[in-house]
This record gives sequence, C-alpha cells and structure tokens, in this order.
Amino acid sequence: MPYLRNGSSMVSMRSIGYVKSPYRNTAEVPRGLGAKHEAEGVLEILPEFETGLTDIDGFSHLFVLWLFDRSRGYELMGTPPSDNRPHGVFATRSPRRPNPIGLTVVELLARNGPRLRVRGVDMLDGTPILDIKPYLSSVAPERLRRGWLAEAEARKCGGAEGNRTG
Amino acid sequence: MPYLRNGSSMVSMRSIGYVKSPYRNTAEVPRGLGAKHEAEGVLEILPEFETGLTDIDGFSHLFVLWLFDRSRGYELMGTPPSDNRPHGVFATRSPRRPNPIGLTVVELLARNGPRLRVRGVDMLDGTPILDIKPYLSSVAPERLRRGWLAEAEARKCGGAEGNRTG
Repeated sequence: MPYLRNGSSMVSMRSIGYVKSPYRNTAEVPRGLGAKHEAEGVLEILPEFETGLTDIDGFSHLFVLWLFDRSRGYELMGTPPSDNRPHGVFATRSPRRPNPIGLTVVELLARNGPRLRVRGVDMLDGTPILDIKPYLSSVAPERLRRGWLAEAEARKCGGAEGNRTG
Repeated sequence: MPYLRNGSSMVSMRSIGYVKSPYRNTAEVPRGLGAKHEAEGVLEILPEFETGLTDIDGFSHLFVLWLFDRSRGYELMGTPPSDNRPHGVFATRSPRRPNPIGLTVVELLARNGPRLRVRGVDMLDGTPILDIKPYLSSVAPERLRRGWLAEAEARKCGGAEGNRTG
C-alpha cells in the first residue's frame, strides 16, 4: 500500500501556485553569512485551491514548500556560499538535493483572495509552490545549535567562542 | 524548462530513508490542543545517502520533510482535532493535502552512522523521508500569531483574550 517503499518512485506532485519574486536568477538572491531575506513577494495560489486558504489570514508566519525547478541533479557534498568547506547536503540548504524541495518561512503581510503578500522570499520568480503550512511554534534560541554555520561565522567574524583555525 | 508549469505534473521523488517511530497507526499519535511531541524515534537514512549527513551532528534541530504515505486524496476544508470548526487545508496540518508532504521539527539526540536518533517524531513507523534540512533560526515568539488555533485554545481554556463563543 505505501508507495516509495523501494527507494525510488514516481509521486504525483502538483503546483498549487507560483511565487512572484523580485529575483529573476540565483545570483540576485542574498546568500551566505548574514544574508537577510526581507524581500517582499506574492504567493499566487491557483483558483482551484483558493478555498484551502480559508483562515490563513490569522497566522503571522507560514512555511512554504516549493520546488527547486531550475536545479538539476544533486550532490551529497557541497560547499555552500557561507563557508569555504564542503558539508553534507542534508546539513545545508543547497538546491541540489535528492528531492529538490525548498522550504522558506515567510511573514504573511496581507491576503487578497488567492494572493498572499509575504516578506522573506528567497525563491526565484515563477517558482512552483507545493504546499503552505501554518508556522505554529519556534524552538527557543537558547536551545539551538547551528553546527558548521556557527563555526563559519566565528571564523569569519572573529567570534570568541572558538573553533577558529586560521 | 521548469516543470510543474501546467498545474499538475509528475515529479520524481525518492525516499532517502525511513522513520522508526513508536506509532503504528494515526490513533496513537498525540493530536489536538496541547499535544506534546516528545516521542523518540530514529531517522534511518539509506546507505547511498549517508555521505549527505556529513556535519549534521552539529545541529541541535532539524527539519524533516516526509511523505504522508498512508493518506489518500485531499480536501480543501477540514476540521482538525484541535477545533470543532473547519479550516482551509493550508491553515492546518491535515494529512489530506494536495501534495502529501509532512514537515516535522525534531531535536537531534545522537548520530550513529546513517541513523539519527531524534526527539519529537509525530510520523508513523515506516514513513518515507524525503529530505532533511538544518534548522537555523526561529521566529521570535512575540512576533507569532497563531490564528484559529489561538482562538480554539482560548475557547477551550477560558483564556482572557476573548473570542469565546460558548
């Protein structure tokens, strides 16, 4: 009964809408250490799915799942823009993943029918949206460890917390 | 070039591993208001993808994207266990979504080769994993609004913030 039982399988995925973003190509998207994602954009949901947005207005933040539709293939190790060392793909946000699904937390600014105006887009214009979910709770910052990213920041910024190697 | 341009399309998705969970059926998963997800489980990554876990040990929390592989079809409006009123599917965590992708934040307790022991599983045993991403930052709690869920809590718990209707 369950599918995807044998490692690889085709799954039917549909776009529920598209992202309107100021970014036309990846070079324009802020990346690397300290990158801020404050860009505003619009999640344009297809009319057939608009009913699914009922009551979404009450949430300040949303998870957006989307497709890296202009990425091809994957690599298990890669060097992200925030570091000069390679890391495993599941420890990074690389677009070249076994399943090319992106995840972005956005702030919902306004809803106009099937259009959600949001802040925090880091997707390219025209990116297909797969799903939207309400953001319900956060991990407390004091409980977060951020592995190689924190180390890269410390190396770059001369942070006192060590792990400097240069 | 981009796929998923025409509303619906087949996308190749593969399982990168499976969840070992104490839950055998959905009735066992804590749901509704105040449900705590403290259950421990294991993310068993397939050997061919183990290299992609390099450096993941440094992160305290992970996003797990997975497939609702025992859910069929979708509905745009549904009544979640935490309320007695229907809401749009994109404002809930219903499994019956246009694209049946689940998202769970887990705490990484230990790694043993391709096995990640984690806290916070709410998936069923054997659930296919699609992706793992590092959890890098949180939305500050004072900036979060939680819409119908906060209202349902207030109704149920007699919270002073109003919206009580009974």
